[in-house]
Amino acid sequence: MNALMEAETPCLLLDAVRMDRNIARLQARMDAFGVMLRPHMKTAKSLDVAARVMAGAGAAITVSTLKEAEAFAAAGVRDMLYAVTIAPGKLGRAAALCAQTGGGLMLVVDSVAAAEAVAAHARESGTAQRALIEIDVDGKRAGVKAGDAAALLAVGRALQEGGAALAGVMSHSGGSYAGGGPDAMAAAAETERAGAVLSARILREAGLPAPIVSVGSTPTAHFARDLAGVSEVRAGVYMFFDLVMAGLGVCGLEDIAISVLATVIGHQHGTGDAIIDAGWTALSRDRGTAGQAVDQGYGLVCDVAGRPFGDLIVREVNQEHGILALREGSGGRAPRLPIGTQVRVLPNHACATAAQHGAYAVMGAGGRIEAEWPRFGGW
Amino acid sequence: MNALMEAETPCLLLDAVRMDRNIARLQARMDAFGVMLRPHMKTAKSLDVAARVMAGAGAAITVSTLKEAEAFAAAGVRDMLYAVTIAPGKLGRAAALCAQTGGGLMLVVDSVAAAEAVAAHARESGTAQRALIEIDVDGKRAGVKAGDAAALLAVGRALQEGGAALAGVMSHSGGSYAGGGPDAMAAAAETERAGAVLSARILREAGLPAPIVSVGSTPTAHFARDLAGVSEVRAGVYMFFDLVMAGLGVCGLEDIAISVLATVIGHQHGTGDAIIDAGWTALSRDRGTAGQAVDQGYGLVCDVAGRPFGDLIVREVNQEHGILALREGSGGRAPRLPIGTQVRVLPNHACATAAQHGAYAVMGAGGRIEAEWPRFGGW
Repeated sequence: MNALMEAETPCLLLDAVRMDRNIARLQARMDAFGVMLRPHMKTAKSLDVAARVMAGAGAAITVSTLKEAEAFAAAGVRDMLYAVTIAPGKLGRAAALCAQTGGGLMLVVDSVAAAEAVAAHARESGTAQRALIEIDVDGKRAGVKAGDAAALLAVGRALQEGGAALAGVMSHSGGSYAGGGPDAMAAAAETERAGAVLSARILREAGLPAPIVSVGSTPTAHFARDLAGVSEVRAGVYMFFDLVMAGLGVCGLEDIAISVLATVIGHQHGTGDAIIDAGWTALSRDRGTAGQAVDQGYGLVCDVAGRPFGDLIVREVNQEHGILALREGSGGRAPRLPIGTQVRVLPNHACATAAQHGAYAVMGAGGRIEAEWPRFGGW
Repeated sequence: MNALMEAETPCLLLDAVRMDRNIARLQARMDAFGVMLRPHMKTAKSLDVAARVMAGAGAAITVSTLKEAEAFAAAGVRDMLYAVTIAPGKLGRAAALCAQTGGGLMLVVDSVAAAEAVAAHARESGTAQRALIEIDVDGKRAGVKAGDAAALLAVGRALQEGGAALAGVMSHSGGSYAGGGPDAMAAAAETERAGAVLSARILREAGLPAPIVSVGSTPTAHFARDLAGVSEVRAGVYMFFDLVMAGLGVCGLEDIAISVLATVIGHQHGTGDAIIDAGWTALSRDRGTAGQAVDQGYGLVCDVAGRPFGDLIVREVNQEHGILALREGSGGRAPRLPIGTQVRVLPNHACATAAQHGAYAVMGAGGRIEAEWPRFGGW
């Protein structure tokens, strides 16, 4: 009996061999550029995964919540970028983290109001608080418009002259998720790089410090052709990859390191479609492939060894039920999956699916579950 | 300063006054019918909420995972329906729960294979295992087709003659979520009732026991006009309600008892759209209102006192960012929300949004946070 059969379902499997390969791949790419990789731990949220990734990447990480920062600080990490514009109400916790890490927590701002709040808190609490200015390169999320000198200098001065330390700029290419092939993703990477480098130059030419130029997204990290002027690259989902990344051509299905192990619990009487014990609580409601060329429903279904059953996807989810069916237009035939059969579902979005679980069941080279790695969540 | 200002954001607020009103409303309706309410704890996943709801409804609850069942058994609950077709691999845990609760855990099956597995496990472990047959009334999820005598009798006999105890039938009107107004939801309720009652009669006429006829969904529980032959009604989301239920006309916006408290952290430079510190990790990726007359995006935005800002919704979410904008076609004007402003987001789907959080920040009559109630998750 395969060791997987012993696992309670649904559970989140992590193929450590694939993960290590994914980590090494991007690390080698960054090493070739001579640029530091600052892995984003928002996907993994795991001290054990961080230990694997930091073995290659070094001491610096990115986090998406102060809860992550607190967990990593407690584990000894001393160089963290909290890559979400900080809410004023979180400045007390940030200052405590700064103290704990010897000034090792960097914040992000994109407005004079936030910069003033950060600076005032730093001044009043005596914190050596470093901050980056977020640069908007494609209108997808937050940030000062790339190259907007007036806005950049106003935010930079509010930080630097108010009592905090401007440390540079950061940008994120949300637009790279539109894909379009290697050339389009390389173009997105160049937009991201150029916007960040230009913004840093504007700051420097005005006499403001901008030692850090931080860029990144998993697609641009893998397709950038030039990183001139960039001091570090951030990426997170690359450790695990997912169907969205496979749909973009950033990875293959065989690189996806996480999957949800589930059990067939019945069949719809009319269609014969199998029903599994993994609904949206286990898979998430993420439909990131809905807009891609191949819509993977709520996930691509594989056998217990991880081999996809052709076009079989999770067509619909309830809270604790997933209904399997062939992708629309498939010429294939759905496999017969008796009750009790275990399957593995590859996720649309690794961050979202992993966030639904409290731990990883970690598989080693033999395909057996060898460890359980806890995850943390919350804020 | 409002006490809410002291809360870390994002966090999940629970308005206990609204919740108590929602609980009382459905309880009064069931009392008028003289039918037992078996509240479904899959939405709340909280011992504290269960205590409130069981004060009126009595000793019996519904659960969606064995983890829930274990938590409630440890808290002394002795009558539980695990309302998901059981996977054979979970029978050991179910038997332990049966022993712990004096036979108080009922299972659900919808196939001969599952019935045989349940019966064999009961026989071999010496467990007095009761089970219901799930009835499919609308093709939406699992179940034996309502009224399919051959299938019903085969499953019933496999249970009863194999060593388990057939306890009746259960149905769930997934179709009621299509809405269509009170008459349509009443019709869905009648379809659900009729299918379950017919199926129970078929079993009884063949000499099989079917004391329990369990039906339910939140819409049908609120719009059923006849419950003749029904012994119990299940519902879960009614305790909290949500935008999907408001869109169906099951509740008003002023009945929605949970919301996500968030803080404005910036504005998009081009549009001025506010960005909050609640992304999909806090709101979930559920888009349950996407197919309704009013699409609420990822949630309807209210001020800190819970009053909606007209047509302001969460237009887009990233992992830790939510971008606010007026609903398309709105003639209104977006409110000015400076950085640091707290807002409350009403969720599309209470089950999904609550599942993203580890606890409720519970507000009492004064609108202040008075308690923290832990939630449990996982399987």
